[in-house]
Amino acid sequence: MVQIVIIYHSGYGHTAKVAEAVGEGARRHAGAHVQVLSVDALDEAGWAALDAADGIIFGSPTYMGGVSAKFKAFMESASKRWYAQSWKDKVAAGFTNSGAYSGDNFNTLMQLLANAMQHSMIWVGTGMKQPTAKGHGPAPDALNRLGSFVGVATQSNDDSPEVTPPSGDLETARMLGQRVAELAARLAGR
Amino acid sequence: MVQIVIIYHSGYGHTAKVAEAVGEGARRHAGAHVQVLSVDALDEAGWAALDAADGIIFGSPTYMGGVSAKFKAFMESASKRWYAQSWKDKVAAGFTNSGAYSGDNFNTLMQLLANAMQHSMIWVGTGMKQPTAKGHGPAPDALNRLGSFVGVATQSNDDSPEVTPPSGDLETARMLGQRVAELAARLAGR
Amino acid sequence: MVQIVIIYHSGYGHTAKVAEAVGEGARRHAGAHVQVLSVDALDEAGWAALDAADGIIFGSPTYMGGVSAKFKAFMESASKRWYAQSWKDKVAAGFTNSGAYSGDNFNTLMQLLANAMQHSMIWVGTGMKQPTAKGHGPAPDALNRLGSFVGVATQSNDDSPEVTPPSGDLETARMLGQRVAELAARLAGR
Amino acid sequence: MVQIVIIYHSGYGHTAKVAEAVGEGARRHAGAHVQVLSVDALDEAGWAALDAADGIIFGSPTYMGGVSAKFKAFMESASKRWYAQSWKDKVAAGFTNSGAYSGDNFNTLMQLLANAMQHSMIWVGTGMKQPTAKGHGPAPDALNRLGSFVGVATQSNDDSPEVTPPSGDLETARMLGQRVAELAARLAGR
Repeated sequence: MVQIVIIYHSGYGHTAKVAEAVGEGARRHAGAHVQVLSVDALDEAGWAALDAADGIIFGSPTYMGGVSAKFKAFMESASKRWYAQSWKDKVAAGFTNSGAYSGDNFNTLMQLLANAMQHSMIWVGTGMKQPTAKGHGPAPDALNRLGSFVGVATQSNDDSPEVTPPSGDLETARMLGQRVAELAARLAGR
Repeated sequence: MVQIVIIYHSGYGHTAKVAEAVGEGARRHAGAHVQVLSVDALDEAGWAALDAADGIIFGSPTYMGGVSAKFKAFMESASKRWYAQSWKDKVAAGFTNSGAYSGDNFNTLMQLLANAMQHSMIWVGTGMKQPTAKGHGPAPDALNRLGSFVGVATQSNDDSPEVTPPSGDLETARMLGQRVAELAARLAGR
Repeated sequence: MVQIVIIYHSGYGHTAKVAEAVGEGARRHAGAHVQVLSVDALDEAGWAALDAADGIIFGSPTYMGGVSAKFKAFMESASKRWYAQSWKDKVAAGFTNSGAYSGDNFNTLMQLLANAMQHSMIWVGTGMKQPTAKGHGPAPDALNRLGSFVGVATQSNDDSPEVTPPSGDLETARMLGQRVAELAARLAGR
Repeated sequence: MVQIVIIYHSGYGHTAKVAEAVGEGARRHAGAHVQVLSVDALDEAGWAALDAADGIIFGSPTYMGGVSAKFKAFMESASKRWYAQSWKDKVAAGFTNSGAYSGDNFNTLMQLLANAMQHSMIWVGTGMKQPTAKGHGPAPDALNRLGSFVGVATQSNDDSPEVTPPSGDLETARMLGQRVAELAARLAGR
């Protein structure tokens, strides 16, 4: 059974919603065991899940052009794992949510990626092209609406997580979860 | 009289249109002398204009996640100026156009910035926040529609440069030109 | 009198030492008023100094490929200033210290830069080329020993701040401070 | 038999030497079929090899803070493959050579990575930590001498490719080739 952990920080609930979607997508892979964990409630069992995972998907809102301080604190608290390189060759991926279409979300994904590379993990991105842009931009249900490749970028309006980010962004997140689970299963020979 | 040069590459005309808008904006600054030059037709007079400029604004489409090869070739052809550091302390800024909202346009802007930093230039960004996002995203006439800060990012639909990128993106480009002209004039004591 | 503030985080003292060097360099500019502040002890007077500054120089160690969580927390605590754009057109620069020559220090500098661009600040980099590399690499007293341009990158060995980073790195830091003070004075008409 | 292609550009021979080392490392994997191709001589057979490859390793010198124009032209000439996503799920990795320790080599690697992500490839980095830094820096035979993780960064002195980059950098390059071959073989079930 392939083990997938989504570890995220969310300030206002939008990134949490995306994290849940990533988890749903990972569960589409038959036999996947999936946990969605917040850095705000990461306990010993959570760390054990991370250590046992075949794939870890990192998620942070984009705050002031980068990962949130809370998520960065998590990254630093994993430095013993980095020192021991105990996450080496696990599959890694990332996602971020921002209020703007760009909003430097690429920079956030690059930070998630750079951290994973220091851990010697194997990185997978969105795995899909952007939609064709016409009129007032891609519809809210378009896959990879923002056109992000290093990881999933979702955009939420100035509204509650119940209504934003839109359905296309969430389905894109699900597909990332599924992609990671499938690749991790292949690599683990499961 | 402050001297501003916009140097760009455009494959299909969209980035050229943005370059012209940047130039229009620079001309809003009273007394500015502005030239808009394509890397495809850069001659000795063009190089002389670059060397004499108080501010240079670099523009490239985003192709495969970065500056176009043609624009990069221009960057490399300026390496003698880099070696002599003869562009040191000129004002620099950048813009890019992509087909997707994100499309790794941040990465393109970072390449323009990194190059300018090797030349020891002084960098100014968009100088404005992103619009508030509601409904189906910022309107086509919104300023800084994509929410880009390191430089201006415009997005063009799969259509001709006559109709895309939209008016807000072009006005954002004009404001970048004006911002660079004003700062360059201040620094030059003009 | 031009006002310069260096705001930094340091975990083990190396980045603090670099911050002090940046401050020394800024003081080389006649009439500069310079404060070197740690994010660990940032009080109301410190925030007032930041708000009154003509130039702000940001410094963070590179931890796990990016700015430290503590420095990022400072960046986020400045978000009201971002919202009001009250730091707009201040001069900005950055520095980082890492244990490796590369160590993803470029990524840290990009985060400092991206944040400054969201504040609509004006960015200056190192302003000097790398030294010529021969034999076992540039000497410890070489200026811009690592060859960094977006900001100053220093490298410290696995030793105490009393002996590392080396003298060339510290002088490079001083020159960044001086460069920022001079530019800020010019822009402020002082 | 796992198929690995190294595709590179080299202006003065240093990056070519690194490319050959990457190829030697890939051949350490029993049964690997490895080709080392220059973008300057890429013919139909070369493109066919790229299309048939299980893993592609991209290499460019760092010129003016990014991939060389010639390598970027190759990246753009692969855009039909991108459009068809025909390189999806191939293993990808990257390397660069620069004259400085940092020299914005991280930025070059990020461009190689961003391009690979647009192709929906799977990225592996160096897979090793940096050496401990003491005295005048890591010895010329140190593995991952520069401390680069997204890809291999080598540094060459102002001397001929016969003597630079040093042995440690070349062995690091070999280990990247081997790492890619092993992962590609696992993924291909070979």
